[in-house]
Amino acid sequence: MAIYDKRRDKIYDWMARENIAMVMIEDCENRRDPALRWLSGQPSDGLFFMSVDRKNLLVPWDINMAMLYSQCDTVVPYSEFDRRPAKALKGAAEFLKVPAGSRIEIPSAIPYPLFLKYVEEITDYDILCRDNGVDLEIEKDRAVKDEEEISIYRKVSAMTCELTALLEKNVASGKLKTEMDVALFIETEARKRGCEGTGFNTLAAGPERSFGIHAFPPYTAGAFGTAGMSILDYGLKYMGYTSDATLTFAREPLVKQQEKMISLVEKAHSLAVSMIGKGVSCRAIALAVDAYFAKSKKTMPHALGHGIGLQAHEAPSVRSRADNEWVLEPGMIVTIEPGLYDPVLGGCRLENDVLITETGADVLTNSKIIRL
Amino acid sequence: MAIYDKRRDKIYDWMARENIAMVMIEDCENRRDPALRWLSGQPSDGLFFMSVDRKNLLVPWDINMAMLYSQCDTVVPYSEFDRRPAKALKGAAEFLKVPAGSRIEIPSAIPYPLFLKYVEEITDYDILCRDNGVDLEIEKDRAVKDEEEISIYRKVSAMTCELTALLEKNVASGKLKTEMDVALFIETEARKRGCEGTGFNTLAAGPERSFGIHAFPPYTAGAFGTAGMSILDYGLKYMGYTSDATLTFAREPLVKQQEKMISLVEKAHSLAVSMIGKGVSCRAIALAVDAYFAKSKKTMPHALGHGIGLQAHEAPSVRSRADNEWVLEPGMIVTIEPGLYDPVLGGCRLENDVLITETGADVLTNSKIIRL
Repeated sequence: MAIYDKRRDKIYDWMARENIAMVMIEDCENRRDPALRWLSGQPSDGLFFMSVDRKNLLVPWDINMAMLYSQCDTVVPYSEFDRRPAKALKGAAEFLKVPAGSRIEIPSAIPYPLFLKYVEEITDYDILCRDNGVDLEIEKDRAVKDEEEISIYRKVSAMTCELTALLEKNVASGKLKTEMDVALFIETEARKRGCEGTGFNTLAAGPERSFGIHAFPPYTAGAFGTAGMSILDYGLKYMGYTSDATLTFAREPLVKQQEKMISLVEKAHSLAVSMIGKGVSCRAIALAVDAYFAKSKKTMPHALGHGIGLQAHEAPSVRSRADNEWVLEPGMIVTIEPGLYDPVLGGCRLENDVLITETGADVLTNSKIIRL
Repeated sequence: MAIYDKRRDKIYDWMARENIAMVMIEDCENRRDPALRWLSGQPSDGLFFMSVDRKNLLVPWDINMAMLYSQCDTVVPYSEFDRRPAKALKGAAEFLKVPAGSRIEIPSAIPYPLFLKYVEEITDYDILCRDNGVDLEIEKDRAVKDEEEISIYRKVSAMTCELTALLEKNVASGKLKTEMDVALFIETEARKRGCEGTGFNTLAAGPERSFGIHAFPPYTAGAFGTAGMSILDYGLKYMGYTSDATLTFAREPLVKQQEKMISLVEKAHSLAVSMIGKGVSCRAIALAVDAYFAKSKKTMPHALGHGIGLQAHEAPSVRSRADNEWVLEPGMIVTIEPGLYDPVLGGCRLENDVLITETGADVLTNSKIIRL
């Protein structure tokens, strides 16, 4: 309970400062939000209400699961509200004794047409839906991992390192021959180690398919690790938290332009990691890598990196767009994943997870470009 | 191309009737929409613009993938618009020569705060965001499968039937002993048959965990098919389309209440399937099953079924909520999946996919409650 109380306390304090009487967090099929799990322990599918007088209420889709996992003041099954969010919101406001006329904030992901329905149906309160409101506050809090989370990351990173070493060995020896072999090996090893599974669809793309930023389909029965460049992008999910690692397997013969791509990606990765530290602008790191590639007339078609946590992609963003204002803080964990792609030559990406510390950076994973 | 042209033609016609000059379809990480694939061939991650004068433009995140898969008039990489949707929308309106002052419809899933930004940034047009607009039109079109889609469903259903028979055999023989064994067997067999993968996370829950509507985690290294009731919910994804089947494996000894649950679920399934046909109200079928369970003082904590297609859950809804107005039409494919769950006794669910025909119903899958 303590960890959830600590997280909720920050939000309660923020609500008091912002004069918000109640907030709603929603995780549902079309709008996933791990803030539900982060604040309540419920892994998925439910509404979570918090009132400024420091009470909370979980409205889960699956009451049996809530009894097992959630750590909340009160749990009321969603069926009590006919599984209708606006009805649940009204019920929660009543239960939590939210005074009429006060401000209630709903998730920033609520679609515009649905927002209009909330406002129409809920007339006793001032309904807010903002992208700089409670969701941004939670996003900022979640971006800096607490001690519990860092301890989980120590474990999931160690498992990822171990698995990466096994993957290198087994692809080199020819034990894992196809994209499917590699992907299912990861699924099996993940569960042997007590992981919930993988953090996202494993992307295993042999030389024929590695030109895609995100290979489609994610993996097939086709060859992996044959001549050319194969990309493997995978993450383990442990206690909700995902690692995120990308290896490139490069097998001879390689043409000169492929060697050039590999060398550029390796150097871009080193450059980015060397820049990481407390107080550093995320955008500055991404711009440096963009500039480095530009010197060789190359363009990276995706962001340099992103935070990881309960989501495979979360704050802070490590990209070069002008609106990226994130600054690295101790406790943040980001990926650094430079990559170059060519429809004929194939693709090459190298990705590691980096914890920002008081004194610098701690590279948690051991991904590299593996020569076969 | 023909199939995409046919689908787009319907939307162009609708746009003319509704006086909409341009529509935008969006598939991105936080808002998946298979309408992108359905209309353009691009599997994921992009914006698709259609103008009422029957021209279209794809703005993909991954240009290499678009070159391989998309079937559109024009393709312009997202990077040309700095990967900013509002900028891409403005660029598309210009490219497609949409007259200033006309109506442009954006996706109904656009969050309220983002909608405000679109409206602020795009001043030359009247921006619409409606839940009864283009998305509903596409949803209705997609609910009734065309010949191409039905032919894909014949194939994916045949593969699912074959795999279900193998699963029955291999769980019975003890070859597949754990949740993970079962789930990874499915992943392997899916790819051997040329599937893109599974349609959703396979849920394999042994007797200890089958009480959860959607087991969490989806599968573990724990035992499957041991004494009591185990649930297996899986789908194969072939050419984008997913099947959706749920088996219950029941092994002796079973207590009387478990036998009762099994019998109720089997009979509810038969009742629902017997009602299916052209012109039948989806809600009426769901209400009949609710009433059947209620006679034994049981409640089903989820909907009776749903449409399947490019999404595991799509229109039509087969649930008993008062606002469900869907009526079955030939070409629709729905799941029928009654289930009962108990934190002590475990859960039991039986799910098959049913194609509505001119003369009745065609049960495409062969799921059953398997006695071990």
